Amino acid sequence: MRKVEVGRKILSANEEYALKNRRILAEKKKLCLNMISSPGSGKTTILVRTITDLKGDIKIGVIEGDIQTDIDAERIRATEAPAVQVNTNGACHLSAAQVSGALENLPIDELNLIFIENVGNLVCPSAFELGESCKVVVLSVAEGDDKPVKYPAIFAKSRALLINKIDLLEAGGQVDFDIERVKVDARKLNKAVEIFPVSAKTGEGMSGWYDWLIESVRINSTST
Amino acid sequence: MRKVEVGRKILSANEEYALKNRRILAEKKKLCLNMISSPGSGKTTILVRTITDLKGDIKIGVIEGDIQTDIDAERIRATEAPAVQVNTNGACHLSAAQVSGALENLPIDELNLIFIENVGNLVCPSAFELGESCKVVVLSVAEGDDKPVKYPAIFAKSRALLINKIDLLEAGGQVDFDIERVKVDARKLNKAVEIFPVSAKTGEGMSGWYDWLIESVRINSTST
Repeated sequence: MRKVEVGRKILSANEEYALKNRRILAEKKKLCLNMISSPGSGKTTILVRTITDLKGDIKIGVIEGDIQTDIDAERIRATEAPAVQVNTNGACHLSAAQVSGALENLPIDELNLIFIENVGNLVCPSAFELGESCKVVVLSVAEGDDKPVKYPAIFAKSRALLINKIDLLEAGGQVDFDIERVKVDARKLNKAVEIFPVSAKTGEGMSGWYDWLIESVRINSTST
Repeated sequence: MRKVEVGRKILSANEEYALKNRRILAEKKKLCLNMISSPGSGKTTILVRTITDLKGDIKIGVIEGDIQTDIDAERIRATEAPAVQVNTNGACHLSAAQVSGALENLPIDELNLIFIENVGNLVCPSAFELGESCKVVVLSVAEGDDKPVKYPAIFAKSRALLINKIDLLEAGGQVDFDIERVKVDARKLNKAVEIFPVSAKTGEGMSGWYDWLIESVRINSTST
């Protein structure tokens, strides 16, 4: 007779790897943020500026997910931060197994904060846990202010929302985008989401994001 | 003894529906374009302007694919064109079965051209045939000029490429984007791709796109 074990959750292969990654990151007390957005919202530009501006405060490493090319990892490495490129070769999201392999190639012990820059896709990556501490969603104002209602999953799951390219909204700016509408719609999905309107190009608004990062790293490193 | 039929291609359920859609469209000689892009590149704005400007020339109907909401179908219906909204409820692309159902709810016989506006996603929709005549990819200049090399599949498969929001590149414009780079990179993937730099907001460049549409409808309707 076969005995069926009751109460043990069956994990998918992805969940198994996500759990492994989560354990490693927890044990080493490293904060890990999974950045998700449409293609071209400015994730890499945000990371380059953040790494450069916080160089004296926190040590950052990056896992770069792209379908093809290592353009983004090269941009990160130009800041002298360690970056591992993962090419998904067509797949629409990073898997936890890919992140597991990438973590082995990062000098984790020397870092305070690891960013995972997921494949540019506002839909699929939200469904795959990578073992991250939390998700961060980026929305560029050029994409329009209806995105939280049209693509709710990632806005519901993210701890922070960066509204990027706000320089396009300045006096004489050419883009129509209602930041207040996005704040209201995002908070309907996710009451506690932290929202940072920023321009990674000009630096406007970045200090609030930096304060949140530094505080999150501090809390994470002292957690038991 | 079981007899194995050799030479019969096994079709997936999606391919079966795509074939069915393709047959219906071919029989009725209707042109059907599957529009694919990232969220917020301006697909719906392009359609609204195209339908309005070509009202006297061709009759257009739209199948609107969205994860949630019927915001886009409402925008199309405001032009008085028929529109059927398909909500994928989380799925990252339209399926041929969904398009099959939508075609039954469009007055096909009265139309010359059917647009399928796919879910905003530059990756997954490129892998699912819907039975369309061809694919059209839209890239907004705000997304950056590295997208053909980073997301090659859809650029390789599309008959036409609309580079939208070129108004952001005007003198004093706030976005850096090299149209020539995109043309070169897209043609490396797809020699025959038609490329139309446009602004659906101001109307700039739209006439080339309209000429291509009218000519494509004409060729399709006289094909045997």
